[in-house]
Amino acid sequence: MMTSKDLIATIRTVPDYPIPGILFYDVTTLFKNPKALRAIVDMTYELYKDKGITKVVGIESRGFVLGSALAVKLGAGFVLARKPGKLPAEVVSESYDKEYGKDTVEIHKDAVSEDDVVLVHDDLLATGGTVGAVNRLVRQFNPKRIYDNFIIELPALRGRQHIPEGTPVTALLQLEGE
Amino acid sequence: MMTSKDLIATIRTVPDYPIPGILFYDVTTLFKNPKALRAIVDMTYELYKDKGITKVVGIESRGFVLGSALAVKLGAGFVLARKPGKLPAEVVSESYDKEYGKDTVEIHKDAVSEDDVVLVHDDLLATGGTVGAVNRLVRQFNPKRIYDNFIIELPALRGRQHIPEGTPVTALLQLEGE
Repeated sequence: MMTSKDLIATIRTVPDYPIPGILFYDVTTLFKNPKALRAIVDMTYELYKDKGITKVVGIESRGFVLGSALAVKLGAGFVLARKPGKLPAEVVSESYDKEYGKDTVEIHKDAVSEDDVVLVHDDLLATGGTVGAVNRLVRQFNPKRIYDNFIIELPALRGRQHIPEGTPVTALLQLEGE
Repeated sequence: MMTSKDLIATIRTVPDYPIPGILFYDVTTLFKNPKALRAIVDMTYELYKDKGITKVVGIESRGFVLGSALAVKLGAGFVLARKPGKLPAEVVSESYDKEYGKDTVEIHKDAVSEDDVVLVHDDLLATGGTVGAVNRLVRQFNPKRIYDNFIIELPALRGRQHIPEGTPVTALLQLEGE
């Protein structure tokens, strides 16, 4: 069984990426490690196995990796939250402010229903802009319940303030980040 | 147990997407269906469980969905093949011709080794340009063996001609497409 410390050791840190002064946590080195990949699936499954999750919403595109494996293990369906223009059928969308300008996320209009219990998943909770928009987007479908999960959270960036109050949030690893 | 016919019934067809005259097969409606999602994981697992797969390479970004769930079930690691500039560390890359201009795919330089048995996965084999480039890219790492797998193949588009000779290829569903 891998500990949090073992998992953190599999994550590559890339200084000054994507811009100078930022230390980037590269989860691709965790994903390529079979034991670490299985460990994050098992650990996250334990957190949600009794919640009746019927849909996992993964955020493009690193959120598709653990998101889909988790959906399979939970016996849920997998829904893709994507950038504009990437989904072929009718969508609902939600915009959010970025440092420079705006961005938008989309989900297919028939992807979630009022009967669903939804787990929103992304690899990283940093400033929380994207995940906040995805939460508002999923709320438009009025599902029974929404949960949020991340592999890594950078608590110093206070991303949870963008997640609607009352939404239970878990993160497997809490790391330092500015 | 779902049959091929059941699976095909879960796939939405979108006429004239992304351009007029193309009938697009939308696998997101398969992914959101818990039984269909589990069925494609189980069916693909049966095809590769005895091949000693150590890495699944998923192609951005719909290839991440079944690719990662499959990696977990096979006990393999998961590697992301991405568009240029999306991977934070040192990469190897491979370009290919598109209808208008060129495109490039990248994999992290430390993502695959000579000891690996690799399964390249994407949701769709159409004209085969991208998957051909990913195969050439994976070959640069000189792994023991390379296999290719798809959820859907459109045989009329003759995509297999872009996959290096001698590479075993499977597709769960063969559909009509122009």
